[in-house]
Amino acid sequence: MLVDGTAHRTIWLGADGWSVEIIDQTRLPHEFVTLRLESVAAVADAIRDMKVRGAPLIGAAAGYGMALAMQADTGDAALDAAHDLLLATRPTAVNLRWALDGMRAVLEPLDRGARRDAAYRRAAEICEEDVAINQAIGGHGLTLIRDIAANKNAGEPVNILTHCNAGWLATVDWGTATAPIYRAHDAGIAVHVWVDETRPRNQGASLTAWELGHHGVPHTIIADNTGGHLMQNGMVDLCITGTDRTTATGDVCNKIGTYLKALAAHDNGVPFYIGLPSPTIDWTLSDGVAEIPIEQRDGAEIRQITGRTASGAIETVTLTPDGSPVANYAFDVTPARLISGLITERGIAPASRAGLAALFPELCDG
Amino acid sequence: MLVDGTAHRTIWLGADGWSVEIIDQTRLPHEFVTLRLESVAAVADAIRDMKVRGAPLIGAAAGYGMALAMQADTGDAALDAAHDLLLATRPTAVNLRWALDGMRAVLEPLDRGARRDAAYRRAAEICEEDVAINQAIGGHGLTLIRDIAANKNAGEPVNILTHCNAGWLATVDWGTATAPIYRAHDAGIAVHVWVDETRPRNQGASLTAWELGHHGVPHTIIADNTGGHLMQNGMVDLCITGTDRTTATGDVCNKIGTYLKALAAHDNGVPFYIGLPSPTIDWTLSDGVAEIPIEQRDGAEIRQITGRTASGAIETVTLTPDGSPVANYAFDVTPARLISGLITERGIAPASRAGLAALFPELCDG
Repeated sequence: MLVDGTAHRTIWLGADGWSVEIIDQTRLPHEFVTLRLESVAAVADAIRDMKVRGAPLIGAAAGYGMALAMQADTGDAALDAAHDLLLATRPTAVNLRWALDGMRAVLEPLDRGARRDAAYRRAAEICEEDVAINQAIGGHGLTLIRDIAANKNAGEPVNILTHCNAGWLATVDWGTATAPIYRAHDAGIAVHVWVDETRPRNQGASLTAWELGHHGVPHTIIADNTGGHLMQNGMVDLCITGTDRTTATGDVCNKIGTYLKALAAHDNGVPFYIGLPSPTIDWTLSDGVAEIPIEQRDGAEIRQITGRTASGAIETVTLTPDGSPVANYAFDVTPARLISGLITERGIAPASRAGLAALFPELCDG
Repeated sequence: MLVDGTAHRTIWLGADGWSVEIIDQTRLPHEFVTLRLESVAAVADAIRDMKVRGAPLIGAAAGYGMALAMQADTGDAALDAAHDLLLATRPTAVNLRWALDGMRAVLEPLDRGARRDAAYRRAAEICEEDVAINQAIGGHGLTLIRDIAANKNAGEPVNILTHCNAGWLATVDWGTATAPIYRAHDAGIAVHVWVDETRPRNQGASLTAWELGHHGVPHTIIADNTGGHLMQNGMVDLCITGTDRTTATGDVCNKIGTYLKALAAHDNGVPFYIGLPSPTIDWTLSDGVAEIPIEQRDGAEIRQITGRTASGAIETVTLTPDGSPVANYAFDVTPARLISGLITERGIAPASRAGLAALFPELCDG
């Protein structure tokens, strides 16, 4: 998507043909800084420090991390060490393990002399596959937005609410929840996005707003508390969020607070859709609330926040009283009954076992 | 309630018998500072700058503002000027107008020589009436908490979720939503409070957590996004919030985000109650969503936040990208159908016209 008028991805091969470049997402929204990574250790640091984040992007970065490892040493020990180093950076990330196991499966059988080029080739494939999935999600979601726009008066935008950042910054390009929005905007359909700031890490305010603004998509940042009021007053036509993990029955585990917006959408007849790349479906699960463990993160994310002072410095401030405990649940589960549909790369499925099985028959029969 | 082991109110007469002292709530939670006010102008500044806030406390402060005006000059012109100065500080606050009109009704018919003492007497009455209402709300709410506690295993606390600050800091003492909690805690019932941080102004994290902590009530601060997850997992026994304005039919206008928590409570069978002093009932209204205008506040409350740096300085930081618009709706409306009951000073009413009419027959027949 566009940054200052230039098309960007979140990760790309350097002009030298071997180093890897990324956007340092910890500097957003206040500074746009790209970094050049020259080793698997540098990639591991970038993932651990959340300079790259978002499940699809972490997978792509891990692929290039393996390639950088092979650039330095194509031996079996180096291959295993790189795999383990990268896997330990975010132990619960499903895409990370998927990407790393896939890389190892490609590289292990090869002669050492073939491993370097194969690693770069596979890493590039991971990126292109992600882009293709997101473009397809965008195309299917575009039909939803186009239908709503057809019933609007001229000049009235389609109002879409999203939560957290399932944007292009979380993927290689396009995003999952945002792909339909970018496709609609690029097709000349008037859209306006309500961006939940998404406490505690504020990925909506700092990342989604930034990327929509740079691509020229009209948007408004709101406190997470606001969506119910907007839906009650007819100010939201459609909700689209991402998902971190989806059960075979269509329950969606996504950033904490998604469930509250789905309840408000259901109470007000607002369609609630999920941008769902099929790799995030966990076909072994059938009850999201009962079966998906919810990560608890460092309480400092609630107690403190970082921003830019009037003098331009980046500063962290404490918000809570000394001695008050905090709890920081990172995700919640939205039951399938509250979801209007799952926008996958193969089309829009009802949020149900039958709905997903019809689109992915080769995956669901386990 | 207790601060560092000493019982405090939010406003009190100075030891000199005429000046008025308050807690400077803009310094919380990082510093506990009291201020001595010696003029109506100082009271007006304190209300305008939100050193005192919360509808009941604003009313009480306005009463003492009028008393300070009479301390300086008991003439008719001074009386009118003080009324108008104080009313202009927070033009939409219902309690402010109620307190000021009441003061003028008492003082205007009196000889100038009698006005000063009458003003102090009426201001003190406003405070005592507020305390009595809140204690009564606390007593009725206590029965709810006691019933839940009776079905718990020994040592298991009753988990109560609250939103924003309807605590003693918003009133003269006890609070509205918090009165049942303080009564239960003081009665030896184990309670634990989930405190929504309550973006954008963070009154939960900065005020409710502070006051609960100082009174010794176990509590945990959470992001506003969290309550749905907690309720889905049986971690909330009861929700209690305040209200800024309640229709004759039991719809509740309260801090933005209350509606989302009521939806989650309803979806999970968690009782959802409102601490409701009867002066906040607007008997002329019957449809909260349609009839109550929602205040939009300065976008800076979304864009920026203030906290304490590592060096102890109070600093304001910007959180959002330059150029991204924000919207800041201050309240939302929770429909009566989602409310289990209204805890008033006369007992617990169903959230309906009949329920309120049964408790307040002399008020409802308009």
